[in-house]
Amino acid sequence: MSLLIAGTMAFDAIETPFGKTDKIVGGSATYAAWSASHFTNEIKQISIIGGDFPQDEIDALKARGVQFEGVEQKENEKSFFWSGKYHLDMNTRDTLATDLNVLTQFNPQLPDSYQNADYLMLGNLMPSLQKQIITQLKVKPKLIIMDTMNFWMDTALDDLKEVMTMIDVLMVNDSEARQLSGEYSLVKAAQKIMQMGPKYLIIKKGEHGALLFHEHNQVFFAPALPLDDVFDPTGAGDTFAGGFIGHIARTNDISYDNMKTAIIIGSAMASFVVESFGTQKLKEITHENISKRLNRFIDLVNFDIKLS
Amino acid sequence: MSLLIAGTMAFDAIETPFGKTDKIVGGSATYAAWSASHFTNEIKQISIIGGDFPQDEIDALKARGVQFEGVEQKENEKSFFWSGKYHLDMNTRDTLATDLNVLTQFNPQLPDSYQNADYLMLGNLMPSLQKQIITQLKVKPKLIIMDTMNFWMDTALDDLKEVMTMIDVLMVNDSEARQLSGEYSLVKAAQKIMQMGPKYLIIKKGEHGALLFHEHNQVFFAPALPLDDVFDPTGAGDTFAGGFIGHIARTNDISYDNMKTAIIIGSAMASFVVESFGTQKLKEITHENISKRLNRFIDLVNFDIKLS
Repeated sequence: MSLLIAGTMAFDAIETPFGKTDKIVGGSATYAAWSASHFTNEIKQISIIGGDFPQDEIDALKARGVQFEGVEQKENEKSFFWSGKYHLDMNTRDTLATDLNVLTQFNPQLPDSYQNADYLMLGNLMPSLQKQIITQLKVKPKLIIMDTMNFWMDTALDDLKEVMTMIDVLMVNDSEARQLSGEYSLVKAAQKIMQMGPKYLIIKKGEHGALLFHEHNQVFFAPALPLDDVFDPTGAGDTFAGGFIGHIARTNDISYDNMKTAIIIGSAMASFVVESFGTQKLKEITHENISKRLNRFIDLVNFDIKLS
Repeated sequence: MSLLIAGTMAFDAIETPFGKTDKIVGGSATYAAWSASHFTNEIKQISIIGGDFPQDEIDALKARGVQFEGVEQKENEKSFFWSGKYHLDMNTRDTLATDLNVLTQFNPQLPDSYQNADYLMLGNLMPSLQKQIITQLKVKPKLIIMDTMNFWMDTALDDLKEVMTMIDVLMVNDSEARQLSGEYSLVKAAQKIMQMGPKYLIIKKGEHGALLFHEHNQVFFAPALPLDDVFDPTGAGDTFAGGFIGHIARTNDISYDNMKTAIIIGSAMASFVVESFGTQKLKEITHENISKRLNRFIDLVNFDIKLS
């Protein structure tokens, strides 16, 4: 099934306790597309890039079935650039630089070929842009999932709340869920947030896994795989989202049960991406690598209860 | 199967964001015994209490099959007392008072009736006392599990390392695992700690669940149940341990697979105790309550993977 992915395609410069990179390719839509491309090869990308975005990265994504008709390239401008430094716990980081560059001119116009897409993933973007994408679609996709961040809660809360009424699955981290709801308890936070629009809520907890909430009393937990080292967490959330929606698109099944599987698959994909800088690992892994890792998730949580 | 439980029986005064208590009954061995008593009724308690320890608490525990021959009562002394205040995240707390009282005179002498016990749980105590208990047993129990804390890593590391060579399962929290191993990664920490003696390591992560490590590559994860509110986390770790070893004693099965089940049961028991102050909830719950909660754990982590 066809999948629209909207978000940034950008450069990152990353410093972690294990090393640092010069400018490497990053961006939410880049990570999500690489991740989803392991499950579906009909991906329609929505983004904006500068003349500096590497052609070989575009070619590599195209070879995986990622279409670029909806990616605007401004030849004389620079791509979005982010630079950050992670602390030892890898859950906190300092932003060193945010150069919006072409992102200030992002005015997504969906090509006709993007109409009738089955699934839409809205990576973290200004809420008004996320809304602009949704409203251009003449037929509502079967499932819209959206990522956002605390910055938009601080600066564009009304827009964010409006777009939340137009989507199916919201994806935030634990501190964002607390901020958005005003509740410390994630269970209470989830109930409040689902009353704001989304039928499903995914709360990402980094190395502590992810929770999926639905309706009044359904909750599913996917652990993060315990790893020897988390080398670089950049893009883990986008990779998680790409694996999640990639599996949904492949199976064309939006049931709660299939979303559980999708969350495990997203977690497995995220466990790969953090093992090296940037998207490197996502380019290398095979179907067999993914299957083996999924089996590790089964071993990780599988238990028998025999109560007498 | 018979189960020895050693640890404190004490008073706590607790303040949380939800309220505060006067002196209520607490202590590691109290929580562990209440928890384990839901699974086995042949519990032999090892502790020391003052004349102020309430007789009705003793009677209530005796009615659940907890034997007191190994509990020394000093009529003219006071029981151990701890007072603390939890922060909003419930994972951090300030200690307001620690009055050791009778604990300074604790010199455990095992009665003959405690010999040949099948299982031993050593709650958090000075490592030399934990060793003293082990060495009094003429026959090594089938499984010895031990809790400890950062305080003993700071003040009695050599003793702690010695007792670690005499036990089977060590239970610590994530920051203690990092301190004990000098490794930030919990996977690496687990490998180092198991080289120090214990064949199994349980790392408790509070609201983020618990990990069980065994040998080189076996790892199991039990989530914490997402709750509306964590009312009072005091005793959660001891209750977890009591449920774990209670299940092992009931089933008389020390296989890795049964330990996975035991960890889920420990997590379920911990999810009850945090719902009210002190041991209250552990006294109220029924077999049916426990079964229902275990089903919630199954729903929480159960998923299907159908990879084509």
